[in-house]
Amino acid sequence: MSNPIVKLASGHEMPLVGFGLWKVPKETAAETVYNAIKVGYRLFDGAYDYQNEKEAGEGIRKAISDGLIKREDVFITTKLWNNYHRKEHALAMAKKQNEAWGLGYIDLFLIHFPCALKYIDPELRRYPAWWIDDAGTVAPDNVPIRETWEAMETLVDTGLARSIGVSNFQAQSLYDIQTYARHPISALQIEHHPYLAQPELLQMARENGIAVTAYSSFGPQSFLELPPAFARRAAGIPLLFDAEPVASAAAKYEVTPAQVLLRWATQRNVAVIPKSNNPSRLQQNLDVIGFEMTAEELEAISGLDRGLRFNDPGFYLPNHPLHIFA
Amino acid sequence: MSNPIVKLASGHEMPLVGFGLWKVPKETAAETVYNAIKVGYRLFDGAYDYQNEKEAGEGIRKAISDGLIKREDVFITTKLWNNYHRKEHALAMAKKQNEAWGLGYIDLFLIHFPCALKYIDPELRRYPAWWIDDAGTVAPDNVPIRETWEAMETLVDTGLARSIGVSNFQAQSLYDIQTYARHPISALQIEHHPYLAQPELLQMARENGIAVTAYSSFGPQSFLELPPAFARRAAGIPLLFDAEPVASAAAKYEVTPAQVLLRWATQRNVAVIPKSNNPSRLQQNLDVIGFEMTAEELEAISGLDRGLRFNDPGFYLPNHPLHIFA
Repeated sequence: MSNPIVKLASGHEMPLVGFGLWKVPKETAAETVYNAIKVGYRLFDGAYDYQNEKEAGEGIRKAISDGLIKREDVFITTKLWNNYHRKEHALAMAKKQNEAWGLGYIDLFLIHFPCALKYIDPELRRYPAWWIDDAGTVAPDNVPIRETWEAMETLVDTGLARSIGVSNFQAQSLYDIQTYARHPISALQIEHHPYLAQPELLQMARENGIAVTAYSSFGPQSFLELPPAFARRAAGIPLLFDAEPVASAAAKYEVTPAQVLLRWATQRNVAVIPKSNNPSRLQQNLDVIGFEMTAEELEAISGLDRGLRFNDPGFYLPNHPLHIFA
Repeated sequence: MSNPIVKLASGHEMPLVGFGLWKVPKETAAETVYNAIKVGYRLFDGAYDYQNEKEAGEGIRKAISDGLIKREDVFITTKLWNNYHRKEHALAMAKKQNEAWGLGYIDLFLIHFPCALKYIDPELRRYPAWWIDDAGTVAPDNVPIRETWEAMETLVDTGLARSIGVSNFQAQSLYDIQTYARHPISALQIEHHPYLAQPELLQMARENGIAVTAYSSFGPQSFLELPPAFARRAAGIPLLFDAEPVASAAAKYEVTPAQVLLRWATQRNVAVIPKSNNPSRLQQNLDVIGFEMTAEELEAISGLDRGLRFNDPGFYLPNHPLHIFA
């Protein structure tokens, strides 16, 4: 099966469909990734925050040593966490993350969120430290985005990363980076599903040569499996799988509603990174280019848009909330 | 009549109700402002873009020389336009604007939009040059927000401005400024009406000590009087004046729907800057603290929210649109 690609502003190519490592348990990550490669996945989307980079890297290295793929056949995305935005911390952390993957370089390195938190020694960081330090508070640090972006550019200069980008950034933040960037913003990763279609942000990204990757493509479904503070906003929201235009497209094309949701994104040139620990669903999620919905069907799905966001830290952080999407 | 005030992070005080100079014709601005002072207005919200600073200043100076008010009784807000974001241009333009007002200093100086456009000599700028240069294109310039913010801080250092802030900025842009600001972001001016209630942004501003001022408090009504490209998105949208919770509160408190919309903002501590060229409406718009709506009534009005924005340059700019709210 062919996996379509997106040409990045850096000149490199990124697969349009990949495997997301968020919520993949560390214990099974190596095997899950190895199996995903066997099924045909060529993009793996990780992050320091997901705490499974080393294991994901192991799965990929095994696939390489077993002769399933070569290094250059896979595309690795990872992300810098909020506690490491200062230049010296960003460089040290990127080196550490790159060593954890053990693949020589990272294809795409993203700033995970546009907000800096005070440094926490990675050796002392007890997962899930996440947004909150051991004292239970969110402790912002005064690190301008520019300092972190320039550290990311250094990663390109030194060859550690081939392309760089950001995640969870708004249009204004992207424009501001563009005023000083030496290397282009190749990619933007955002929450994106029919309840949060964000046509203006997609248009801005298209106009500025920034490739967009969707996370949480299934909307509320992606959050219900999380702890209560996270899942609260998704509770009671009708599942996108059951929405009329999704269900009827699934019936017409004899695919699953999940495949319809992924195809709705990829037909609009938005990359997707579903995850599954279930082998048959793993296969289905990758096989989302074998049918073409009509413009009317895509529009009907886009018509579900209600600007409904599930993943703003301001929704669930105690003490010092960060409303980064307001 | 008493005009409630908001304490700014700078330590200065700002009236909660003011007079907005957007769309006030240059020819009548001096007289309009003079009459507004007579009625009781003590805040005037201007901008270089409105092209009536000199005339507004004349109206105020006449009121001072006629003994109606002293300089310190009025609060002047103005804004730096997009073509003057480079430090040297910002400083020169602020000086020129301050001289146009002719009142010694500006109370609150805002960056009008978070996007820099190429310099246009103010002497050559033919109004409405606005977002578009003489060639009909939008020409962005690579000026980081930080450079412009630091120019604004210089205005405080030199005494030209007492407080500084921004307009049309998103939360992420505000957080980023906070990482390097020497002087606080005292105020944020945004489009705000029941169709665009933005509770998260208001909460972020409250948590960060940033006073919020609403523009276009009447929603679509504020745009229908503009040229077609601007007004297009407002056409066909039901007027807020006719919305049930607005109309029923107006009937109950024996006020106009406009007064209800302004009071909905001020009861939530959002400052307002309506404009009117009609003397009786001028009086009504100021008189929006004489009644208190119940929490239920405020919520019913907030329930009209549909995230409906009318003033994103991306909606109407040709060639190089700027989707600054995506």
